[in-house]
Order: sequence, then C-alpha cells, then structure tokens
Amino acid sequence: MNSSALDPTVGELSEGAVLRRILARFPASEALVGPGDDAAVLAAPDGRVVATTDTLVHGPDFRLAWSSGFDLGWKAAAVNLADVAAMGARPTALLVALAMPNDTRLSFVEQLADGLRDACDTIAPGCAVEGGDLTVSDTLTIAVTALGSLDGRAPVLRSGARPGDVLAVAGELGAAARGLAILFDRFRTPSGEPVPIDAGVLNADEARSLAAQLRPEPPVALGPAAADAGATALMDVSDGLVLDASRLAAASDVTVDLDSSALGRDLSAALTGGEDHALLASFPPASQLPYGFRAVGRIVERSQHPVLIDGAVHDGRGGWDPYRDWDAHGG
Amino acid sequence: MNSSALDPTVGELSEGAVLRRILARFPASEALVGPGDDAAVLAAPDGRVVATTDTLVHGPDFRLAWSSGFDLGWKAAAVNLADVAAMGARPTALLVALAMPNDTRLSFVEQLADGLRDACDTIAPGCAVEGGDLTVSDTLTIAVTALGSLDGRAPVLRSGARPGDVLAVAGELGAAARGLAILFDRFRTPSGEPVPIDAGVLNADEARSLAAQLRPEPPVALGPAAADAGATALMDVSDGLVLDASRLAAASDVTVDLDSSALGRDLSAALTGGEDHALLASFPPASQLPYGFRAVGRIVERSQHPVLIDGAVHDGRGGWDPYRDWDAHGG
Repeated sequence: MNSSALDPTVGELSEGAVLRRILARFPASEALVGPGDDAAVLAAPDGRVVATTDTLVHGPDFRLAWSSGFDLGWKAAAVNLADVAAMGARPTALLVALAMPNDTRLSFVEQLADGLRDACDTIAPGCAVEGGDLTVSDTLTIAVTALGSLDGRAPVLRSGARPGDVLAVAGELGAAARGLAILFDRFRTPSGEPVPIDAGVLNADEARSLAAQLRPEPPVALGPAAADAGATALMDVSDGLVLDASRLAAASDVTVDLDSSALGRDLSAALTGGEDHALLASFPPASQLPYGFRAVGRIVERSQHPVLIDGAVHDGRGGWDPYRDWDAHGG
Repeated sequence: MNSSALDPTVGELSEGAVLRRILARFPASEALVGPGDDAAVLAAPDGRVVATTDTLVHGPDFRLAWSSGFDLGWKAAAVNLADVAAMGARPTALLVALAMPNDTRLSFVEQLADGLRDACDTIAPGCAVEGGDLTVSDTLTIAVTALGSLDGRAPVLRSGARPGDVLAVAGELGAAARGLAILFDRFRTPSGEPVPIDAGVLNADEARSLAAQLRPEPPVALGPAAADAGATALMDVSDGLVLDASRLAAASDVTVDLDSSALGRDLSAALTGGEDHALLASFPPASQLPYGFRAVGRIVERSQHPVLIDGAVHDGRGGWDPYRDWDAHGG
C-alpha cells in the first residue's frame, strides 16, 4: 500500500497520534478516571465487578475481505457484552487491546473505533471504551475485556439448572452460521480466497443472516431481565446450542432435553451453528418467561447424555462431539 | 515439530483440554466467581475498580529464542501489575487472552501459566488469574487485563505534580535496556537471528540486567505506599524516564528537572531505556519519601521544554523526541 497524507498507515504515525485519533471517536468519558492514565478507574456500585475477555484474530475469526473495520469493532464489543449479560449483569466498560500490522490504514482503525462505540451505544447503552493498548503485530488481533455491574443481583451461573426447569432462549439461533455459510459458499474464489461481499445479490433473509455473522446484536439487556425473573442458570450461546447446552448440563449436573419444534425451520443450524450470542437460560417450572425469551426445552435428571432432542439421543451431526466437553466447565 | 503423546501441541487438543491443563497450574480461585463461567465476578470492596490492559506480541515484544514460556507469563503479568500500582492501587485479578499457533507445545503453555502465577505470587500477592480466553493465531500474543482495588484511596494520576514537588523513583532505571542490549549484541547470529541465551558467559551484573528485561519485578507494593505518603502524581516508567517524565509534565502542566547525579553510572540507559516498569512519583516539598523511593529531580514551572536535565535542555540522544508526545495524554 502507498503512503497517503490523507489516510496514513499506523506505521507512519506515533502511537500517541493513533491513540488521539481513536479517542476522538469516543464520547467524553464518564468514568472516575477514563483513558489516558496508567489505568482506568471505574465505578463498581455494589462492591463487585463482572469481568470477561474475548479475542478476534485475523484468519480464524474474521477475514478482511468480508469484515470492515466497523464490523470488527462492533463484533469484538458485542461478543464480550454478551458474556457480561450472561451473568445477569449490565456492561459498564470495555478495555481494548489492538495489535495490528504497521500497514494498517488509520481510516480502518477509526472505523473500528466507531464500531466499538456504536455497538456499545446500541446494545449496551452506558457502556464505553475506557482503556486500551496499541501494539504492532503481523496478525490483526482485537482483544477486548468487558466489565459489568450486577447492581445488587446475585450472578446467574451455569450451574443452577434443576430438573423440571424450563429451558429458554433469547435471541436468534443459527442465523450467524447461515451467514458464515453464505460467505464461504458465495463470496470466495474457486480456489477458496475470500472476495468482497456484493450485498446486491442477497435477499432479505440472507442479508439478515449475514448481519448476524458480521454485526451480531446479542440481547444484552435481557441478561439482567432473566436474573430479575428468577433464572436458575444463564449463559451465552457462542459455540452452538447443543454444545453450550451440554456445558450448562455439565455445570448443573443435569440433562437438557431440547424441543425440536421450538427451534425453527433450520434445525441443524439452530442446534450446531456457532456465534449466535443468544442467551440460554433455565427458569423454575411454570415461570412466566420474561419478555424476549421463548421455551426451547426442559431440564431433566442427569442421564447418560448431556443433551437430548425430543427425548432422544442427538446423533452428533454438524461435527458436534457430545462427549468432548462433557466434563469441561470452560468456554 | 512432531506430535508427541507426552507433550502434544495445542492444535492436537480441544480448547477445553488446554484450558483444564492451564487451570490446573493455578491455585483454587478465591474470587466470588472464578474461571469457568461466562465471566468472573470479583470483589471491588470500595465500590471502584482499577482496570488496565497491555499486550505482548511475538516479534516486536519478545523472541522465543530468548524468552521461555515462564518468562513470557511472568512479564505479561508484571507489566500490567505495574500499571495498577501506578494508580496507587493493589492488583486483585488478571484476565489473560492467549492467542497462539496450533503448533505451540502444551508444555510451553503450562510454563506460561506458571509464569503468570509466580509473578502474581511474588510481585502482587493476593492477585491471581481469574479469567481468560484461548484462540488460534499465527502470531503468539498475550493480552492481559489487570484489575485492582484502591482500598479507599484516591487514585494518583499523572496530572497532580506541582512546582516545588520532589520527583522520585522506585525501582531500577536502565537495567531492562541493558538487558536488551546484551540480547542484541551477544545472542544473535551474524545475520541478526536470535539464538538461545548461554547464561554461563554472563557476569552477575549482566545476568541481573537480563533478568530485568526478561522477568521484570516492578515495585508493585510501593504504588499504594506512594499514595499513602501523599504522592501528587504517580506513573509507570515503561518507555524510558525522559519520555515518561515528559508525559507527567504534559498531564500536570509543569516541567520536570532531572538530577543527573541521581541517575547512576549509565545515564543514557537511565534516561532513555524502556521497559523498566519503575514507578515515577512526585511528592510535596520537604516530604519524607516512602521506603523504596529516591529523589531524582524536582518539578518546576512549565517552560518551553517538558524535561530538563540539571536545569538544561536535554539533547534528545537515544532516539527520544522530546516534542512528539508533549501534547499526548496516552501511554
């Protein structure tokens, strides 16, 4: 790429200059101490803070032919905001560690900052970027840490589901996977290289699936709502419903029985598609589900299998291995 | 590299399996919610949390011929712990986003986990890894977020230095830069490729400088001590004394006058060498400096230059540009 006075590369600028251009995209900080000192100082009004980190790496997690800087900033924020919500908490701040090649254009970095900002404003109003770090790397990497407040609530863990509970979901299932399939099927060269997206060739449903993949909108406000409604367990669906439900089952020492009739027309995508960042929750029997949640199954006594579908053993289609993470508590 | 049943690569294992091996290196979590759910929940006893993030990237920040997994874990923790201390706070938790190539050996990851743990235990007892993220990347990248508690103190910013204040440092200056010079001068091939360190050829002073570069021990406990002693400004010295002092000067709208006689025999390294992670503080005139701090200059009225040395303009040797970041508040 050529140098350009109008749109220099980050390698042509000092770290301080790039940082100033990023900070100029953000609203004035309302933190106790915002960006610019050695660390931020943030309010933790109930004496606790929720904290999570998740990273997007060029190659495994995104391709620049498909994702704009704005998309990447948005998605890096959204996936972390969803993890805060999945504790029943309200996101309060992001810290963003951005490692990028020296030939990255300043305009790209500015768009990324805009994506971070707009995702917070849209999905988690009141949350903002309050700190970060810029480094050089051969591999564009966006590591975000999200902090949040429980506002006096008990955190809702994965481990609280009990036999008899209703299993419910807020947010879409399978749409992000359909979006990824559209990218792989229709926006690659015959040799497999990604090519830019021509949105004009997509119908409305395809465009919606693509947006779910590139700019997910997890139902962050419904995390605290689920907690307030008495959710017994709560988690983010990031690796597909079956795999994440198996983690909830393992943590709660129960089995999850999914109702296929509640999972839409594209059952395979709903069961195994990743990156939806929907919320999966269990509620006590006969609960009135909070607005935005729909029942997708129930919790039963632990049996040989962590997840059943319509009472039967899932056949593992879609590459999912029902046993691999049966003992894992991570994710 | 060949596969090995005894020491598999991370690409041969599931994410859950790698995570379990990492978590097995850490003591049982004392957090409200430790690793394994969607997010950690940490105590923030005075209703505030200090938060900072800093990243180590293979290539610009370290070379695997020179740094072991243990070294990298240690350093990634230490540089973040120093930033928490630089607010006058006590580190309470780390979150670690680790992006690594699929051919990374599990033993390397375990050593990295040990380095994170031991740095916390040594430099910031009571602080531990409470969350993280594992991803695949072509470039080994360790992004750490550190959280801390002010325990009722006011945060000590960079902006509080006043004319007449004493400028003081805790920790070594220049040692990490001497260590880097040893690596570049003595542990590279004629064509510049790094080769493993032969510690047997180093004298005691050289070994100490190398340790300062590879396993820094910032004086983390002296951050809260400086706050308690009335420090008016406080920051981490990560980019060299002159550059960081110029940032303190800019934030405080003052000029810093350094006393060369207080900076040791290797003045150039003390002034411009980076990565020391010493603490730089200003104290009111006639203060008794807290244990561990030594006077290195004084704060004067803002003049044309942010930093003077013995009352004269610094000549910028060592590549430092005294104007580049004069208006910057970042770092």
